[in-house]
Amino acid sequence: MSEPSPSALIPEAELVARLRAIGKERYHHQHPFHLLMHEGKLTRGQLQAWALNRYAYQSRIPIKDATILARSEDPDFRRAWRKRLIDHDGDGKSPGGIEKWLRLVEATGLSRKQAITGEGILPATRYAVDAYVDLVRSKTHLEAVASSLTELFSKDLITLRVDRLRQHYPWLSGGLDYFQGRMTQAPEDATFALNWVVKHARTRPEQEAAVDALRAKCDILWAMLDALYFAYVTPGWPPPGAFRPTETP
Amino acid sequence: MSEPSPSALIPEAELVARLRAIGKERYHHQHPFHLLMHEGKLTRGQLQAWALNRYAYQSRIPIKDATILARSEDPDFRRAWRKRLIDHDGDGKSPGGIEKWLRLVEATGLSRKQAITGEGILPATRYAVDAYVDLVRSKTHLEAVASSLTELFSKDLITLRVDRLRQHYPWLSGGLDYFQGRMTQAPEDATFALNWVVKHARTRPEQEAAVDALRAKCDILWAMLDALYFAYVTPGWPPPGAFRPTETP
Repeated sequence: MSEPSPSALIPEAELVARLRAIGKERYHHQHPFHLLMHEGKLTRGQLQAWALNRYAYQSRIPIKDATILARSEDPDFRRAWRKRLIDHDGDGKSPGGIEKWLRLVEATGLSRKQAITGEGILPATRYAVDAYVDLVRSKTHLEAVASSLTELFSKDLITLRVDRLRQHYPWLSGGLDYFQGRMTQAPEDATFALNWVVKHARTRPEQEAAVDALRAKCDILWAMLDALYFAYVTPGWPPPGAFRPTETP
Repeated sequence: MSEPSPSALIPEAELVARLRAIGKERYHHQHPFHLLMHEGKLTRGQLQAWALNRYAYQSRIPIKDATILARSEDPDFRRAWRKRLIDHDGDGKSPGGIEKWLRLVEATGLSRKQAITGEGILPATRYAVDAYVDLVRSKTHLEAVASSLTELFSKDLITLRVDRLRQHYPWLSGGLDYFQGRMTQAPEDATFALNWVVKHARTRPEQEAAVDALRAKCDILWAMLDALYFAYVTPGWPPPGAFRPTETP
């Protein structure tokens, strides 16, 4: 079999396979911080730092989704994408993802106010989160949608996480509603986005750009955990001004 | 003596003292990565990673300075700030700071091409550098100028660094021209910027914003070294796709 031309369109099934391969290789399910979490080896202080820093990411999700929505001229796309705003901001009756994450923060023993004001969040967390919002603003609409495809990989991670959090940190069990919701929301969203990306990447450079955007998003998630690991696991040097757990490990 | 009102203007000398205090507290001269560097405890591979990643920062300096320049309506300010573009981009005859940094990269044994293409640079480095460019674009002009005041603190660090690099890593000695230039350039620039900030911060909120901007800039420099330390010192996990030294430590 001869090598296909580097400018030839990648067949759809192969494009999907390439996107999925990025998850295997680069998604943060393999990050050492998550491995420790799932082995029950994190202290409460480390879980507090995780919940607090990850809130900075959660709080930006509707902003990045509204940015993606605002860039589409297709009412069908916008209607489909609108679901994400509801998932995270809620419908005014049942809580959305952001409220549920705040309950997780509270279950770790920190106040929701600390998360909302962002006091003590690692600067490196903010830079990574801002890089994500900047990606969906400044790259093409196709790349912005492709960057959301990490949701293809989240269900397995979340399923494992909920199981292990219950097992190893039972004191956290009251704060896990966020993950329950995401187990059905994320796969629905990912299926829509994957189909959309495959359909709308109509040239080889567009296909490559979509793949790169997913890789870039994986880098962002990974960098957030690197920063947590460095500041709170080992060597354990939070930068000046960052949250410091009060408990002994 | 009674406490001054929290809305009262900070006297000029005290504002200068506050800005200088931030350097003592937060400037990256105290970062563990620099301490190892100055003690001669870094490997060539670690110095390569440092030179390569720091190039991503150096390469953005004229872009951030042109952004600051473009935001001023004062020809005197623009003329003074223009010097920085020449310092880093050169005058076409003698090399500027960027070219000198590329020579430092080469002195570590990496190619200038690797630095210029950015292959293997840590994503966290890029996020921090982009946060700096974003700061000077999106905050006030006063805050943008104040963020440059880390140059108040750089001379002592650079003087020590050149001395220790010569002592501990003699194979690097041919690549130190960048630092020689900065020993006179940075203090001149810092004096101008400090006087300008003190003169143009005319309300208490503006003064506080200037102080915060300098703190934010220190956070950016610190986060870049955190990322290097985590990836290349300990535990030594470069993220997927990042530069990996080939030598044994």
